[in-house]
Formats: sequence, structure tokens, C-alpha cells
Amino acid sequence: MINVDISNVWNCVSLPELLGTEKEVFDAHNLLRDHKPGGPDFLSWLTMPPSLSARYVHSVRTAADRICDDSDVLVVCGTGGPFQGAEAAIDLYCGKNHNLKCSGPQVIFVGDSLSGRQWVELTQLLDDRDYSLHLISADGKDLCFNVISRGLRWLLERKYGPATKSRITVSTIVGSPLHRMAQEEGYELFPLLKELGGIHSTLSAAALLPMAVAGIDPQSVLDGAARCYRETDVRSFENPVWLYAAARHVLSQKGRNKELLCFFDHDLETLGRWWQRQVWRHGCREDVGITVETALLPGDLEAMHQMVASGRSGTFETMLHFTPISKQIPVEMDWKDYDGLGFLSGKNLEQVQNQLMQSMIESHNDAGVPILDIQAGDLVAETIGELFCFFELSSALTAAISGIDPFDLDNQGVNRAALQALGSPRV
Amino acid sequence: MINVDISNVWNCVSLPELLGTEKEVFDAHNLLRDHKPGGPDFLSWLTMPPSLSARYVHSVRTAADRICDDSDVLVVCGTGGPFQGAEAAIDLYCGKNHNLKCSGPQVIFVGDSLSGRQWVELTQLLDDRDYSLHLISADGKDLCFNVISRGLRWLLERKYGPATKSRITVSTIVGSPLHRMAQEEGYELFPLLKELGGIHSTLSAAALLPMAVAGIDPQSVLDGAARCYRETDVRSFENPVWLYAAARHVLSQKGRNKELLCFFDHDLETLGRWWQRQVWRHGCREDVGITVETALLPGDLEAMHQMVASGRSGTFETMLHFTPISKQIPVEMDWKDYDGLGFLSGKNLEQVQNQLMQSMIESHNDAGVPILDIQAGDLVAETIGELFCFFELSSALTAAISGIDPFDLDNQGVNRAALQALGSPRV
Repeated sequence: MINVDISNVWNCVSLPELLGTEKEVFDAHNLLRDHKPGGPDFLSWLTMPPSLSARYVHSVRTAADRICDDSDVLVVCGTGGPFQGAEAAIDLYCGKNHNLKCSGPQVIFVGDSLSGRQWVELTQLLDDRDYSLHLISADGKDLCFNVISRGLRWLLERKYGPATKSRITVSTIVGSPLHRMAQEEGYELFPLLKELGGIHSTLSAAALLPMAVAGIDPQSVLDGAARCYRETDVRSFENPVWLYAAARHVLSQKGRNKELLCFFDHDLETLGRWWQRQVWRHGCREDVGITVETALLPGDLEAMHQMVASGRSGTFETMLHFTPISKQIPVEMDWKDYDGLGFLSGKNLEQVQNQLMQSMIESHNDAGVPILDIQAGDLVAETIGELFCFFELSSALTAAISGIDPFDLDNQGVNRAALQALGSPRV
Repeated sequence: MINVDISNVWNCVSLPELLGTEKEVFDAHNLLRDHKPGGPDFLSWLTMPPSLSARYVHSVRTAADRICDDSDVLVVCGTGGPFQGAEAAIDLYCGKNHNLKCSGPQVIFVGDSLSGRQWVELTQLLDDRDYSLHLISADGKDLCFNVISRGLRWLLERKYGPATKSRITVSTIVGSPLHRMAQEEGYELFPLLKELGGIHSTLSAAALLPMAVAGIDPQSVLDGAARCYRETDVRSFENPVWLYAAARHVLSQKGRNKELLCFFDHDLETLGRWWQRQVWRHGCREDVGITVETALLPGDLEAMHQMVASGRSGTFETMLHFTPISKQIPVEMDWKDYDGLGFLSGKNLEQVQNQLMQSMIESHNDAGVPILDIQAGDLVAETIGELFCFFELSSALTAAISGIDPFDLDNQGVNRAALQALGSPRV
């Protein structure tokens, strides 16, 4: 189970201040869990009926097996939480260099940002390989996504002709233009079901399919998420989601509205980006909300040392780490001891990193920077589900405490303006 | 030549305010260019004598050719600007998926962050391939870097025995422990020369070597940087570095001290991270300085739309883009026109992205967000050098305008504290 340690926030927040939020946190918790009409319309995907979940997982596994059989590459083209979440999960679980491994298909993520140069590179990469395409779009209205997916479908059609049909899978909400396309063209559809959180849930088939192709078991991920949802239905500060959300809320009220998500693992960067966007999307409105930056330790820490160690206001830090695996990087013998680290003999890299982190926490804490610590346990497939659930619940709870409906989104303004300027007959 | 457009900052800054900084900018410019004793000790690498430059480039090319001949993989292990800059340049010029291409050695970047899990993955990747190791460390004192490089050297020794010698290259400042190691063990040394900017310059052999292995010509990169340095020695606001630095300075004085570096190209993310760290390192002290976040368009824009469009104070945006290549992603025909974009027939993705950006600029500008625009020209090797030089000069100038010496760094405190806690006999 994820554990949140707040013992390094007392330089900024007092215990009565934290406990003083109890009523707001309690109300927000109930609002999120009650699924009442008028309340924020979400989170129900975490209470998914087991029968639905089993059917769901079966279809994901079947499609993933087919892709592993007939494709060297899976191209994932999409937008939104599930798209970014899938990339984050694969980077974290399989490593950033997952595509350099020799087993299983490569998984290449093509967002809604692509230049002509990248297009040329992609087509060269795909040229002499077999590939499949997985499209993810909430409502199928994103301008850039549509142009890119038109291009990719055309590429497939040219290579596979009528057999293209079995090489495209689509995740979208029911009734969207993309949904209609999947039905009429016969592409396999993994709808973003309302009862599974629709566009708001990172954990839908949209994300589970690429994860399964990369070897992450979808049932384990869903189990981890469901367990996290169950275990965080505790209405007290023993609940790590309560602790994290309440601490963030109080910190932001004290002007600490910039969170620095810190980790020692390069492979966590994509998850950090996902969290950044999750918070932007569901927690930032006008003048309310915390923004997130990620920091890779120790390099980023050293770069910002003079700023952060001075206690520069506005920032708090959140450490995210996992239990180390048993295989370690030992401090190897070097009898000439050029670097003077011979005294570390018998120790390993993670012990050194841990000490660096402790020293950093002490130094920043002395300078008045509040620090939260998230211990995420062993890095197994269940943990991936647990992490997404934990962060989704936390961002929703932090927002709800501040009186924001985290799912009242209006972000199509620019898309509409651009469509109009481009001469769309429908706007 | 890089062009900076400030026509969208007038909602926040007045022309007299900008021009009012002329004296400070002029003084800071002179301070940086004069190389006088007592002034910040740097920037001289950009006026490198051609003879040195030619020798320098020759040795980089020779080493790169050797690595291309005898290695399937170059592992780059390091810290600091040159390490991050090399990764940024390769991601930008060769694409984030550069290691999936079939030609030339793969280049794998191992920073000073590595977990046991990543170590296992890396050793599996390297197991049946031939590889070389390039070590980059300013003073060779970074704790984590040293532990990782000990592990990698041990791995090489076990595989290649005495032949290891020719498979390790080292970049470090003269006199560091790493320098001594290279000399005694016979590893090829590419010193971080003081007259080439030492640890402060991204463009040293440390970065040029991996870039050359990935196919980026070092002479062209240096030419681009030198041209940028020459052409930005204009002491007026026609100088794009003056415009960018002065605008950032005035914006930060108005409380806009968070820069959002925005781009449409996934491959620019690593450069964005480099810029973020560059600014942290050289421009942020106590309560002075601008912090940088990166935003990938259009997804990040949509996610933060409700916050930014409300004119939330504290943020300004910097758009970074290149001239599109001639090969475009056309809006392909789809006679069923599911997405309703048929009216775009004859247009291409970059036109659509451009319109989205224009619409975004208008919408955010109306909401009071100031926006800078950097047009970086064609993406060729020269541009890489130009970009690094432009950004390095700009961060130094912004800092100097605020009265900060951008190269007065003290970031070893935590390293020392950790060494002490680990029981180092030398601290």
C-alpha cells in the first residue's frame, strides 16, 4: 500500500492547521464517493462490477495477443490521460529503453504533436516492418489528432489494403465521430465507457491495451487500482489520499502552490509529466490550484540548489520512490581509488542515493521548504494501477476541497477558434 | 539567424519600460563580452581560436569514427550541461526514436540517476553487443556519477580486459580525479578546457562526441555557435538576445517569473529540460530568477487552458519553432469524412498546428498573458550550435541584468553532507 510521510512539512504547516481541514476533506471525500446526481460525475470506474472487468480484460488480452503475433510495432496515436498514462506505465515498468529490447513488439507513442520531420522518420521506421495502430481520442474532435490519424490510416491502407481492418483498434467515447468510424470500418472498438470514467480515467482499455502489448498484465493493474480505491475509503487522516490532498491544500493556502515532484529514476519522468497534466487539467482553475514541475535527482537538485535551499517561497517538494529490487549496483572496487569513494565498499548505489536524498531533505527542510514523501512499495503491475488511482483520487480530492469541480472542463475554445479560422463549415 | 518576436508582450509591458532597461542591458552585455578580471569568468569558448577549434574537431571526429567502427552502442554516463545538451541535440536532430534506426551505433544516456532495475535492464541490453563508454563529469566529484561509472568500467573490464582502454573516453576539467584516472589508465581524454567554457559550456567535446556518433557534424555545430556569438554582439534591441533577455527581465519584475516554453514537437522536450536546468543553475538565486516549465502543444495547452486563459498571474509563454521541412503530413482524403475535416483538403498538419498556435496566442493574449516567439530557422546542425549559444547568452544576460553572477555556483553542499553521513574520511 502507498504510504505518505508528512513529517517534513511542520516547518510550514502546524498540526492544528492540517486537522482543521477535516470537515472540508470529509465533505469532499463523500462528494467524490457518493456518485450522487449533481456531484462530480466520475470515479465510478473504480467500482467496476467484476463481471464487466473480466470481459474487459479478456478483450484487451485477446487484442494484445493478436498484435504480438502479427506486428513488430504498435503505433499508439492519441490524446488525453489514457494515452499519456500508457506511455508513463510502460516507461516505468519496462524502462525508457523498452523498445531496444529484443522480445515483443515495439510500442511507439505518437501524440497529437508531430512535425513533418518526425513524420518522415516514423514512416522510415515502419517501412519494412509489420505494424498495428491504436487510436485514442476522447471525443474524436481534436484537430491535430485527426490529421495525424488520417495520415496513419492512409499509410496502413496502402500497405495492407482490406486487411487494414484487423490492424486498427480504437478507444473513444460512445457516439463520437471516431466511434462511428470504428463501427462502419470494422475496427475493433474499446469504448471509453461512462461507467469506467470515460475520458477522465487513465485506466481504461485505451491504456491497458498498449500496456498489455508491452507485457504489463491488465488484470493486475486493475486489481491494484481497485485495492487502492477500497483501502483509501477510510474517512480519517490514516488515509494516505487524505494526508496528501489535505497537506497539498494547506500548503497551497500558505502560498506554496508549486509542487516539485522529485525522484531518482529517469523512468519516472513520463509519470511525472502525466501527473503535471492531470493537475493542470483537473486542479487548476483561474487563480486556484497547484502547478507541478518534475525534478530528476540529484542533477536537478544541484541545479536549483541556490534557489530552493534559500527557502524561496512558493515551492514544496514531493519525493516519490519505490522499494529497491534485490539486485543492486554495488560500489565496485577500484584499488587506485581515484574518486576517493573506496570507503563505500560493501555499499550500493541505492544506499548512496538514499543518503543523498536524506541530506537534501534535511538541508531543504532547514531552509524552510516543506517536503512530502510518497513510498510506493514494490514496482509490480499492481503498483501501476495503485499509483494512477492514488494520484487521480488525490488530485480530485485536492480540487474538491478547494471547491473546484475537477471534471468541469472547458478546453475546446482554442480548437474551435482554429477550426473557424481554417474555414470549417460547421463552426 | 534566430529571430525573437515580442509583439505579444504589450498587454503586460510598455515600450518605454522595455527601452528603459537599455543601460542595464548594455552594461551586462559589456560585462559578459569583456572577459575582464573580476567579471564573470566565461563565454570565452565562443571566441575559440580557429586553430584550436580545428584540432578539437579533428580529435572528436576521429574518436567518433572509431566508436562507429567497433561499437553497436555508445553509453554516455555523465552530469551537467554537456551531458544534457548532447541528449537534447540528438533527440532534436535525430528524433527521440533515434536508437530504433538501423544505421550507426545506438547512443544510450545514463545520467547520475539509476535504479537497480535500470541497471539490470542496461546490462541485459549490453550483454551481447559491443559497446564503448563516454564519461562526462565536471570535477569528477559527483557521488552518484562515480558509483555508476565504477560499475560501468567494471562491466567493460570483465568483457574486454586490457582492450577496455580504447573503449573509454573521458571529459572532465584538468586536474580532477577523473582527469588523473584517464591519464593513468590511458583512456582518451577530452578535457573541459577553461578557455572553452569549462563546465559551463554545453558545447565542448564532452557533448560533441556523442553528437558526432549520432551523425551531427561537430564543425557545423561550432560554426553555428560562433556565428550566433558574432551576430549577437550588436549593442541595441535589434539583437535577439537583448530582446529576449530584456523582455524576460521586465516580465519577471512585473511578477511574471514563470516561463512556459511551448512547442509542437515531441523531440524538443529534452532541449526544454536542458533550458529549465540551465536557468535554474545560472539564473535562479534566492528570490531572483525565472523558473521554466515546458509545454507540449496542443495537449498541455488544453490541459492548462482554464488556468492560463484566465490570465493567472505569474506566467508568460515562449513559443519555440523551426521552419517546417518541405515534406508535409497532408490532410488525407477520407470520403466518409467522419471527423468533418474534409474542408481542410489541400492543407497539411503544420498549417493546422500553426493556426492552432495563432488561435492560442490570440486567446491567451486577450486574457493578458504575454507571449514571446522564437523562430529558430531551419533545423540543421548549425542551428543546434546557434540554439545552445542563444540560450546560454540569454540566460547569462538575464542574470547579469538582475545583478546576479550567473557562474557563481555553490551546489556541492548536499553532496558534502551525504559524503559525511556515509562516513567519508576526507570530509
